[in-house]
Amino acid sequence: MGKIKLSKIDTDAPESLKKDEIKDKTKELVAGIGQICKSIYAEKKHSVLIVLQGMDASGKDGVAQNVFAECSALAIDACSFKKPTEEEFAHDFLWRVHKLAPAKGNMKIFIRSHYEDILIQSVHQWIDKDRAAKRMNAINAFEELLQFDNNTTILKFYLHISHSKQLEKLKERRDNPQKQWKFNEQDFEESKLWDEYMECYEYAINNSTIPWHIIPADQNWFRDYSVAQIVLETLKKLKSKFPTLNDLE
Amino acid sequence: MGKIKLSKIDTDAPESLKKDEIKDKTKELVAGIGQICKSIYAEKKHSVLIVLQGMDASGKDGVAQNVFAECSALAIDACSFKKPTEEEFAHDFLWRVHKLAPAKGNMKIFIRSHYEDILIQSVHQWIDKDRAAKRMNAINAFEELLQFDNNTTILKFYLHISHSKQLEKLKERRDNPQKQWKFNEQDFEESKLWDEYMECYEYAINNSTIPWHIIPADQNWFRDYSVAQIVLETLKKLKSKFPTLNDLE
Repeated sequence: MGKIKLSKIDTDAPESLKKDEIKDKTKELVAGIGQICKSIYAEKKHSVLIVLQGMDASGKDGVAQNVFAECSALAIDACSFKKPTEEEFAHDFLWRVHKLAPAKGNMKIFIRSHYEDILIQSVHQWIDKDRAAKRMNAINAFEELLQFDNNTTILKFYLHISHSKQLEKLKERRDNPQKQWKFNEQDFEESKLWDEYMECYEYAINNSTIPWHIIPADQNWFRDYSVAQIVLETLKKLKSKFPTLNDLE
Repeated sequence: MGKIKLSKIDTDAPESLKKDEIKDKTKELVAGIGQICKSIYAEKKHSVLIVLQGMDASGKDGVAQNVFAECSALAIDACSFKKPTEEEFAHDFLWRVHKLAPAKGNMKIFIRSHYEDILIQSVHQWIDKDRAAKRMNAINAFEELLQFDNNTTILKFYLHISHSKQLEKLKERRDNPQKQWKFNEQDFEESKLWDEYMECYEYAINNSTIPWHIIPADQNWFRDYSVAQIVLETLKKLKSKFPTLNDLE
């Protein structure tokens, strides 16, 4: 498999698509995901981990809300990773992540994830290349462990937004009172490190054992549709079903 | 390094040693361990993981109590791994273990450990060879993660008792009211699987990246002395010291 270069990948929806039609299709996909989520919960054989990564304003929260809108709160949970606490800092970087791994029967959404520990930390040179490489190996081993030892299906999405679209969205957050709760002055500073972030994302994507899905994310409707398609298709393959009394004997 | 064959390794103390002298020396070692434990706690740079494995009645609890008797409860904690709970079973085998990894400044004693998930589970064929091998790789990756990302010093001890000594001790547990709280009829059944356990232990010991210490364990006094020697020697190498105001600036 060739190495991915993010600047070569489109961030826009294909022009041929009609927004309203896609939105209708997305609704069906989202309903389908909600249905399968119920049988996964009932069956308790599989677990599912959804990793959402992307630059600020790329739509991670939006995907978590929209694509999984029909999943029962009993069966799904979303964790948003922030700056580690003092207790978390006193442990290895996967300690706080492993605790949150999904139990059989459950789905978990990671908004940001263990990948931040090689992304932001490498961009700011808080860790050197050697540690980043060791962490990359540890991530691969960790994800393989979840797969082989807990039947975890891992779906990783990079929400691929253009730099100009990001700046547009950050300004909207600053200027629209409805969105100001999401605004953080620091986001503009991080945005200046765009090229460094792209390089680190490419490193993570190209060195992951479990492949990433790169999602064009400049239009919310196409972003949600693309993620929902992949999620539904993957969940269908689990062929999970509601256990009957025969199964429980 | 050659492969270890447990049946070729002595379980007895060397005949030249005098029990009383060794017991006195052990007291000094134990005091030394308690001292260094304080500076590790104050410095908060290092963490220490002590893994105690061995057949029933090999003295895991004894080592935990005797060798670390002078360590402050603030700085050290012992976890005894039992049959996994329902919640633990719904996760990968390292999930419950990783949560208990020592924070910087702390020492942790594992009485039994993640190794049980390849030992007892292989002996009873609850997992096949392929899964045991995958778990072995996951254990190596996990222990390396603790080392490189949390400054964890990992010391693993196999308490090497002979089969005849084990049976003698199990009978004592059954017949001595003071020890009956430790008695479990099932232990005699497990003891019949001695050869299978030895084979699994050899597999784990020979496939670990971080080496094991094989401790002759037929005599409690020599067992404690041997472990204490290795622990103290290892802790000294950390060169931990109480931070002064200069360090904290």
